[in-house]
Amino acid sequence: MQSVELEQKALEDYRGIVSEEILDSIVEAAEPLQGKRVLHINSTSFGGGVAEILSSMVPLMVDLGLDAHWRVIEGDPAFFNTTKSFHNSLQGGDVNISDEMRGHYKEVNRKNAEDLKDDWDVVVVHDLQPAALIEHVKREGVWIWRCHLDLSTPNRDSLAFIGQFIASYDSAIYTMEGYIPSGIGRRKPAIIHPSIDPLSSKNLPMEPTDVDSILARYDIDPSKPTVSSVARFDPWKDPIGTIDLYRVVKRRVPDLQLLLVSSMADDDPEGWEYYEKAVRRAGEDPDIFFLTNMIGVGNREVNAIQRRSSLGLLKSIREGFGLTVSESLWKRVPVIGSRVGGIPLQVMDGENGFVVDDSQGAVEPMVRLLKDEVLRERMGEAGKAHVRKNFLITRHLRDYINLFVSLLEDSGRGTT
Amino acid sequence: MQSVELEQKALEDYRGIVSEEILDSIVEAAEPLQGKRVLHINSTSFGGGVAEILSSMVPLMVDLGLDAHWRVIEGDPAFFNTTKSFHNSLQGGDVNISDEMRGHYKEVNRKNAEDLKDDWDVVVVHDLQPAALIEHVKREGVWIWRCHLDLSTPNRDSLAFIGQFIASYDSAIYTMEGYIPSGIGRRKPAIIHPSIDPLSSKNLPMEPTDVDSILARYDIDPSKPTVSSVARFDPWKDPIGTIDLYRVVKRRVPDLQLLLVSSMADDDPEGWEYYEKAVRRAGEDPDIFFLTNMIGVGNREVNAIQRRSSLGLLKSIREGFGLTVSESLWKRVPVIGSRVGGIPLQVMDGENGFVVDDSQGAVEPMVRLLKDEVLRERMGEAGKAHVRKNFLITRHLRDYINLFVSLLEDSGRGTT
Repeated sequence: MQSVELEQKALEDYRGIVSEEILDSIVEAAEPLQGKRVLHINSTSFGGGVAEILSSMVPLMVDLGLDAHWRVIEGDPAFFNTTKSFHNSLQGGDVNISDEMRGHYKEVNRKNAEDLKDDWDVVVVHDLQPAALIEHVKREGVWIWRCHLDLSTPNRDSLAFIGQFIASYDSAIYTMEGYIPSGIGRRKPAIIHPSIDPLSSKNLPMEPTDVDSILARYDIDPSKPTVSSVARFDPWKDPIGTIDLYRVVKRRVPDLQLLLVSSMADDDPEGWEYYEKAVRRAGEDPDIFFLTNMIGVGNREVNAIQRRSSLGLLKSIREGFGLTVSESLWKRVPVIGSRVGGIPLQVMDGENGFVVDDSQGAVEPMVRLLKDEVLRERMGEAGKAHVRKNFLITRHLRDYINLFVSLLEDSGRGTT
Repeated sequence: MQSVELEQKALEDYRGIVSEEILDSIVEAAEPLQGKRVLHINSTSFGGGVAEILSSMVPLMVDLGLDAHWRVIEGDPAFFNTTKSFHNSLQGGDVNISDEMRGHYKEVNRKNAEDLKDDWDVVVVHDLQPAALIEHVKREGVWIWRCHLDLSTPNRDSLAFIGQFIASYDSAIYTMEGYIPSGIGRRKPAIIHPSIDPLSSKNLPMEPTDVDSILARYDIDPSKPTVSSVARFDPWKDPIGTIDLYRVVKRRVPDLQLLLVSSMADDDPEGWEYYEKAVRRAGEDPDIFFLTNMIGVGNREVNAIQRRSSLGLLKSIREGFGLTVSESLWKRVPVIGSRVGGIPLQVMDGENGFVVDDSQGAVEPMVRLLKDEVLRERMGEAGKAHVRKNFLITRHLRDYINLFVSLLEDSGRGTT
């Protein structure tokens, strides 16, 4: 395994941004964990939501006095293809995983376990790739499996395979109640919602002139009503339905602009096919914008785009947690989202946006919000307050700390 | 500089494919060059036409008995941005290159020259990136600048800057007569046309069942009349005009399919913007196909696509050499191309395709060829013969060998 070098982060930097109550409670909660050796293991140090969270979370644990580390598992392309297949089948996809692939998965985990000494108080293993490490260590500490997937409708065969490793863990953490599969794991699992980092470049405050100059670069008119949807190009995120919905609403809000924002991966042909499909559906409508990393859209640009949107839209058919909802809300932008995954936890219907059941149900709320600036401002404030309370990294950190304390006490290993 | 590891290639493998006369004449011409130390220097070992040619050319020189090597210059992103700006401005673009950028360009060349001993008989420097190396070596051998660019309408200021280095070379090679700038270089330049490698995976014979299975992967109907255009998405290649032309022709050939084939680069936002523009123009027409590396289109796929096309189309407004024309012709597929760059050298009007002045002029020839299978077959044979004689790597190799011999004799350094 490879060690990931940590940035330096200080919890104090969050004072004035996050809730004081949470901030103080974290420091107190972490008291018994001073010097405890904590290791997070996942599959990549950058790219994707898990790496994004760990790159803030692990340094903050260090700042709290834990001896926290981060490592990534190493494997060949066959290994990562296998875990991608498991990932898809565990989320309900129809994928066949051969015995050879299963064997290779175990073998790569065995090799990665070779340099893993069992001198950790807490080991947090994220997702599938490193899940089988536990088979190969004479473990002393508490082992936690942190699942970021939706296991509510898994392929039973894949679940049984993964379940044999998960059974050995002391605890499993899921993102939402609804994602917990039946019949795997030894104990009642924990629920920890994900979070956004208000100090990341995607969420930091920006000067209005900087925002405007970024929008100008992409010929977006900042004076027109604008809906942004930050979502990968895949069928579950329904970009085609989003374009169709925009067209219906545009009949009543003729100036409307639609910004489709996404990060594209080199190695995801399906993503490219779906991107092409969406661009074709948009045709030559100059008020639809495709904003991807391929034309320079990174964290700062997403930040600017969300800030200058009249509202956010996430019309997913199925959703992991949909954290881009919280990103918009944090910028005081109300959100209209479907009643799937974590969206209804973030959007409180009628308070900071609207939760809808389908495209048809989205039309009236969109028109209403686009035409009513006062309502947008009120909902925007409510959205920011909701995220501050529930979906910032500090709340997330506190949940981890509390879980570590309780598991260490249960294990008889105790705390300092 | 970095040495590039060479594949093994044997000239004998080309027997039966290329013209016997050229094959024998190469071996004879290379006699006096046995053991001569030859170094090619360019900027990258893969990606782009120059690297593609060198990866066949240098191993074949080794096979001929030369002590041939290949190195690539190393630089930071600022260096490659600068040379890209020079590239654009030398091809007529309006780009400003600061004194700082010029200084950095020279400095990177100076550093790269540090490990370049002057024990070479012949050094071939390709394009702009390594052009200033010559300033920093006490040279003994013959130095050749191999220009793959079109310098017919250069920015004079950039040309003067580059010209100061080119003046020191013993010879310059251009791709076409029309690309030679006035007023730089010491001697009458040489002309060497580029070439394709019939043994590369892009051009090798393929089983019809393999061709069909590749087309099926992209839902292309092999039974319908099909026009393919292999060209980057940029304004000079005119993909928008190509789509518009297809629409005019489709009125008379209703089944027509258009295949737009291109390789996309991560670091080319303009390419992405133009790709998006073309996809938007295509809209939801299911008979237009976008076939890029992002969805798995590599050399073998391009090979299959060209083989199954009724005709090739290259509607460039401006063109380097347009070698994709020869790629199609080599597969017995006639080509319709504009009267720019190297296209009229490859397409012999009325013999192996048609040379046209604009989109309007392309309509009748396209309809005629699409409707006349006998004509297509006759032109296809003529195209293959024309490429065999003029645009295969063996002819290209012979031109180099002949130039080396004559320059070494002129230099008084002699040949063995």
